Amino acid sequence: MAELAAERTIARPSTPEDAEAFPKSERLFRVHDHGGTELHVPLRRVHLAGEPGHIDLYDTGGPRGIDPREGLPKPRAAWIRAREERGDSNFSQMHYARRGVVTEEMAFVAAREGCEPEFVRAEVAAGRAIIPANRKHPEIEPMIIGRNFAVKVNANIGNSAVTSSIEEEVEKLRWSTLWGADTVMDLSTGKDIHETREWIVRNSAVPIGTVPIYQCLEKVGGKIEDLDIDLFLETLEEQAEQGVDYFTIHAGVRLAYVPKTAQRLTGIVSRGGSIMAKWCLAHHRENFLYEHFERICELMKRYDVSFSLGDGLRPGSIFDANDESQFAELETLGELTQVAWKHDVQTMIEGPGHVPMNLIKENVTKQMELCSEAPFYTLGPLTTDIAPGYDHITSAIGAAQIGWYGTAMLCYVTPKEHLGLPNRDDVKAGVIAYKIAAHAADVAKGHPGAQAWDNALSRARFEFRWEDQFNLALDPVTARAYHDETLPADGAKTAHFCSMCGPHFCSMKITEDVRAAAAKEGISAEDALERGLAEKSKEFVETGGEIYRPVP
Amino acid sequence: MAELAAERTIARPSTPEDAEAFPKSERLFRVHDHGGTELHVPLRRVHLAGEPGHIDLYDTGGPRGIDPREGLPKPRAAWIRAREERGDSNFSQMHYARRGVVTEEMAFVAAREGCEPEFVRAEVAAGRAIIPANRKHPEIEPMIIGRNFAVKVNANIGNSAVTSSIEEEVEKLRWSTLWGADTVMDLSTGKDIHETREWIVRNSAVPIGTVPIYQCLEKVGGKIEDLDIDLFLETLEEQAEQGVDYFTIHAGVRLAYVPKTAQRLTGIVSRGGSIMAKWCLAHHRENFLYEHFERICELMKRYDVSFSLGDGLRPGSIFDANDESQFAELETLGELTQVAWKHDVQTMIEGPGHVPMNLIKENVTKQMELCSEAPFYTLGPLTTDIAPGYDHITSAIGAAQIGWYGTAMLCYVTPKEHLGLPNRDDVKAGVIAYKIAAHAADVAKGHPGAQAWDNALSRARFEFRWEDQFNLALDPVTARAYHDETLPADGAKTAHFCSMCGPHFCSMKITEDVRAAAAKEGISAEDALERGLAEKSKEFVETGGEIYRPVP
Repeated sequence: MAELAAERTIARPSTPEDAEAFPKSERLFRVHDHGGTELHVPLRRVHLAGEPGHIDLYDTGGPRGIDPREGLPKPRAAWIRAREERGDSNFSQMHYARRGVVTEEMAFVAAREGCEPEFVRAEVAAGRAIIPANRKHPEIEPMIIGRNFAVKVNANIGNSAVTSSIEEEVEKLRWSTLWGADTVMDLSTGKDIHETREWIVRNSAVPIGTVPIYQCLEKVGGKIEDLDIDLFLETLEEQAEQGVDYFTIHAGVRLAYVPKTAQRLTGIVSRGGSIMAKWCLAHHRENFLYEHFERICELMKRYDVSFSLGDGLRPGSIFDANDESQFAELETLGELTQVAWKHDVQTMIEGPGHVPMNLIKENVTKQMELCSEAPFYTLGPLTTDIAPGYDHITSAIGAAQIGWYGTAMLCYVTPKEHLGLPNRDDVKAGVIAYKIAAHAADVAKGHPGAQAWDNALSRARFEFRWEDQFNLALDPVTARAYHDETLPADGAKTAHFCSMCGPHFCSMKITEDVRAAAAKEGISAEDALERGLAEKSKEFVETGGEIYRPVP
Repeated sequence: MAELAAERTIARPSTPEDAEAFPKSERLFRVHDHGGTELHVPLRRVHLAGEPGHIDLYDTGGPRGIDPREGLPKPRAAWIRAREERGDSNFSQMHYARRGVVTEEMAFVAAREGCEPEFVRAEVAAGRAIIPANRKHPEIEPMIIGRNFAVKVNANIGNSAVTSSIEEEVEKLRWSTLWGADTVMDLSTGKDIHETREWIVRNSAVPIGTVPIYQCLEKVGGKIEDLDIDLFLETLEEQAEQGVDYFTIHAGVRLAYVPKTAQRLTGIVSRGGSIMAKWCLAHHRENFLYEHFERICELMKRYDVSFSLGDGLRPGSIFDANDESQFAELETLGELTQVAWKHDVQTMIEGPGHVPMNLIKENVTKQMELCSEAPFYTLGPLTTDIAPGYDHITSAIGAAQIGWYGTAMLCYVTPKEHLGLPNRDDVKAGVIAYKIAAHAADVAKGHPGAQAWDNALSRARFEFRWEDQFNLALDPVTARAYHDETLPADGAKTAHFCSMCGPHFCSMKITEDVRAAAAKEGISAEDALERGLAEKSKEFVETGGEIYRPVP
């Protein structure tokens, strides 16, 4: 990303974990002025031995090395207090945006994304982007989800009845944001849901999402038919007070759609969706979330919790992709988007799931049309069902494509999907696969600045700057370890050939020789080659004939 | 795939390695009659506890458990002998196809792919597909590469000057075909090139490809300028005699194109391409492979070695994708395809490399047009350059897409790409990622029968048939191991919930309950739901209210 002339930066404390994960990286705040308020916008600066000297990358890591019992600092506290003291009653970013106000959060994400604050305001006002930022979550370093910004990645964590503890979940939060998760969903369904969430929110600089119906179900002892809107609203309030930034709400699973799933190969695979479907059938009544949607909106805007309208009827196998029930629900989500927007409540739309490549684009086209361009947030999609154990890959294929087509955020899938609960390594594998998908999408969309990272790494590769290659990698430690497995000696890191081919067969080395021979003549390689005189070629043999040149 | 009524199968010996890799799989030959000749077509039958009882999968594994010093049996020997005794001089499958002959190889691949022999003949005659099968490689179980057949995967092996041994390379061959590699390229550049190749060919039931210029370069002690056409033809003959099935030949790197690479970020990254570019510059003469291309064709047809026309000027970074030099070379490859076809020499075209998603389709469109629909064979492409250590993923994203667009074979990329030499685990990771990409492409193309595998696995998942899920997986051992990490008890393999959600939150379990409640009434689930009477719903609560039902 381009640097400003008068840039001022502040160093951020770094932990041993950071230094190990990202050698030669420096974590910084770039200081931006927003009408007299200083905004401290995070970035990770990778220092290079060669051109362009350094490169600044988007940094999701947040404050690190802080005792989880203390919780993080609260950069938003003063901004929010001012709004509360004014007596605002709708705290939604969309509400401010529509009144022409550029909030601190908007200015912050503009600086973070490298665009104008006014552009951010306009996108939020139009509903094409959301800034999930509950006013009870002052620890956030604001971020934006919308298709005209960098594609984002969500990581799911959360304990379950079967396994895992609170400490593990906080550690997974830190770990996933270290590797680049832009938001984290706490999908806990086990015991201590409330306390787990409190720890997670207080230790998170990224927005936190939840699926409140899970806690409701725990409250009624698992008896789906005992759920009702009052319990639901009470639970929303409880979670909103804690600072949850977006809620997945399955208000589109209407009674009439449930029968449509009967002919499916894999029925209903969304947990929230199946709960609501069962409730609808048990009472033979319309989904209470749909019926009382405006009451939910009233609550959401008091906190600025964003909707993530759940796709309860998403396909659970490629066989079921793009079927009638899926798109019927999507149409309802479009209708609910209009209701939410009437209240200025920020809204994104969840999408599938399991979709073969040829059916992916239709999902985006329909979603944009039916939901008036509200941001799309998809799980994968998996493009085949034959590879349990590798669904981070089957789904990264779909995620990259759907991101390119316009999806704003990608919900990660780990190698353990369909099989078990992800551990630390699985979380990392999932986040990395999805950072690849999101970045590939940014590059394909021509998102400003995206390809600069690729170019810096490619240049380092071509110039045999091994250390720069490792340090620029999405995962430097793994890149270095793989190199060292073949060529462990330190000298190999300055070698002018790769371990894959050996010195005789290094194409980059040969190309370098070709260029060097031309440069020696004081002319550009291109000119030299185009003139291509016989005498030049003779001299080239004499001076550059030795392919392998000892490293100086 | 559909079974024939009068099917006859023969059991194949299985090794402990097979049994461990694919539990409940049986390796079989299905016997087909081809005008009185018995063809033994391999398949792997996965036996299931539930519907559809079993599923037959394409099997690349070949004869296993045979001492490598003995070599494999020679199913093609008699077919080839008959042709030789007739005094044929052009042994190319294309030659036979164009004369209206359905060879044993064509009948074999028709049975293997589930189509008519005549269709195979027509595709080969048109140049839209190739059957790489040197008459000196009688060990082959024939396969076909063309966009109207299943997308294929190639795995690269080969020692280098830096590391690895012959035994290791044979083991990599066996290992990569066990996991599904359809062809294997021996890219050895180290010592004992000839002997390594002999071992590989004699132990391979899949076609073997090579890049003969590597051995030529070893023969001249690494001095590129000493290469010439006589040495090249002599080397081709040597390798053709051994039984190599396809040769990568960089005849499209013309002198005039080399200057076009000077403005690239990463120059020339193909090893063969850079060798030929340097030769052109050193002599300031046209590429001798281009100039003497007809002499090469004469040799190819005597053996039926297929061309894999090398893309020596492929991009080595996404920055360089789809540039002038790349497409200039592609145009020449189209011209050479016509020359090859004049001699009835089977031909496929190699493609990139590193290409952002938005530029992938243009590669296929141009290739089909310029090369008259000769099969396309691409390396990846990688869709971003920021993730060394994960290039099996960055490239599987591109490979799946380019396969869907019409690429016939995908050359795998391992996690070690750009960093080091792949070991056993890397080879497996690369093959699995590419089987995913190829299968996702088959499904997206609507290739007949492709989705049956997905459906079988999805059905097993929905019905909580854990063992069937594992056994149907592309990698059963990994799937089972991931499951057991969370829920190791044997009982968990018959559990009616997944370890991810626990019993209360299992959407599939809930859906199953919904269906069961309806079925109890003796009506279909759909009818039950659509009638949706209040009394039914009341009863549903009474009978099916308990979400978790103990496993019988």
